[in-house]
Amino acid sequence: PPTAPLPSRHSTPMQFADQLAEAVRNTGSITCVGLDPRKSQLPAPIRDSVGSDDPGAWADAYRRFCCGIIDVVAGMVPCVKPQAAFFEALGPAGMVALGHVIKHAREAGLLVITDGKRNDIGSTATAYADAYLGERSPWGSDALTVSPYLGRDSLEPFVDVCDSRDAGIFVLVKTSNPGGGLFQDRETEGQTVYQAVAQLIRELNQGRLGQSGYGPAGAVVGATYPQQLQGLREAMPSSWILIPGFGAQGGSAADVLPGLDANGLGAIVNNSRHLIFAHAREEFRDRFGDARWQDAVAEATKKMNEQLG
Amino acid sequence: PPTAPLPSRHSTPMQFADQLAEAVRNTGSITCVGLDPRKSQLPAPIRDSVGSDDPGAWADAYRRFCCGIIDVVAGMVPCVKPQAAFFEALGPAGMVALGHVIKHAREAGLLVITDGKRNDIGSTATAYADAYLGERSPWGSDALTVSPYLGRDSLEPFVDVCDSRDAGIFVLVKTSNPGGGLFQDRETEGQTVYQAVAQLIRELNQGRLGQSGYGPAGAVVGATYPQQLQGLREAMPSSWILIPGFGAQGGSAADVLPGLDANGLGAIVNNSRHLIFAHAREEFRDRFGDARWQDAVAEATKKMNEQLG
Repeated sequence: PPTAPLPSRHSTPMQFADQLAEAVRNTGSITCVGLDPRKSQLPAPIRDSVGSDDPGAWADAYRRFCCGIIDVVAGMVPCVKPQAAFFEALGPAGMVALGHVIKHAREAGLLVITDGKRNDIGSTATAYADAYLGERSPWGSDALTVSPYLGRDSLEPFVDVCDSRDAGIFVLVKTSNPGGGLFQDRETEGQTVYQAVAQLIRELNQGRLGQSGYGPAGAVVGATYPQQLQGLREAMPSSWILIPGFGAQGGSAADVLPGLDANGLGAIVNNSRHLIFAHAREEFRDRFGDARWQDAVAEATKKMNEQLG
Repeated sequence: PPTAPLPSRHSTPMQFADQLAEAVRNTGSITCVGLDPRKSQLPAPIRDSVGSDDPGAWADAYRRFCCGIIDVVAGMVPCVKPQAAFFEALGPAGMVALGHVIKHAREAGLLVITDGKRNDIGSTATAYADAYLGERSPWGSDALTVSPYLGRDSLEPFVDVCDSRDAGIFVLVKTSNPGGGLFQDRETEGQTVYQAVAQLIRELNQGRLGQSGYGPAGAVVGATYPQQLQGLREAMPSSWILIPGFGAQGGSAADVLPGLDANGLGAIVNNSRHLIFAHAREEFRDRFGDARWQDAVAEATKKMNEQLG
């Protein structure tokens, strides 16, 4: 396993929010490539190379697949978002692969948002923050997705750790799934739970804004709720918004536009399946097929950049 | 890393809820030993054996420490609860250690509740469920703690996977931290968010009850809220309740009693620091000290069993 902490990307400290702004400007893209490897959907050259049902063999395939994507999209997009669940599904061997993938992405100049939706109380929240974001983080992520259910004192340890290093968090606000509203939309005195979470995120950024005008506490808002996205953009003017739900889940380019500020910053749009498994999509299958799956990823990413441009 | 899936504990399938009832009866204990290893608090014989600052060296120390606790408490308590955050804080090497610890606990006859507070949408929730609870789970946990913020369609994949194997979940309802109420206590038409989560858990158990009268969907309710615990016991009559916050966080034996049913089942009480770092507590320090830290764990666990007995 890779164990040495990764060096900071900049010789002078630069907040995550500012790094993200710079990466968006440099690439001219607000696309985030979701790294969600799934056994059954891997392109044939990688899937067929797995000779056994051993999790270690599949973990190695996930590593090669994700690193192959990273090699293609580096320079085209500002960031990638590995989904921890798919690596954890392979057990400890999968987590070793996740470590390699994060390291490879950082070395390729991409910002890495680890999607783990982690959280816990007090000192345990600090352990998660140190794990993924701390100065001596063995994973070396640039940002982590975080769940807000445990309240303010479970989020403060994360922003404290963000202060100590150029790192950020994206707190779940309004998720993209059809049933997300069950608790998130419950209204008390005119304010929904997700609006209360947004208010807390705004408070957490106070006194922490970078030169871009954004702070370390970002938000997750699904592309499947464009109306709410507009209101949340206004409610959290200093938060980067990570927008999942584009593409396979049904969100369109028009749906994500309300997440952007007047300068075209402030939001990144994640797409996983439609980009990483592009070789299997009808529009690319005949042209590229499994053999040229990396070309399909490049073409699909270029198209998504154009859609959002 | 240990990669082979663990065999089921019983030759005939037996629901997790029933296994837990049996384990509580067999041990005469409702204590859950929380495995929360922290570098600075390890007993000297283990801490001093770590020759470098390498995460792999610390991960091996965590493994030896946790396995040493397991060897002591097997037969004394029904279950242990490893806290994923502390293993993740050591990076991939820590996750390899977590795999070993879970395996060792199961081999010692203990039920293992992995405390990860995981969740995500739809198919990603299924990946987490498969990871920790599935038939071919490479971790082999008996149960997993789960966060409810993403709603019903994020919890259903977990109970579906529980059906396929003798596994369970504990959903966060009312957490033990001081700030837990910020979102959990928000009231809409006379029902708080945590009460709405409890109602959902009750619904998820419908048609899934074992011979003990309990189902796969359990709940987490902090010992620091005894009043609410009473109401939640009544609201979720078919749910095992995992009660953190006893001991170091201030909860007393009287505080957890409302969690039990008339037969003394239905609740398990977690204690981490006061048990696993018992060697450093004033009442045990002189008698055992660092050298006899395992004897201190045994004595503290025995005392907690008596307090709750």
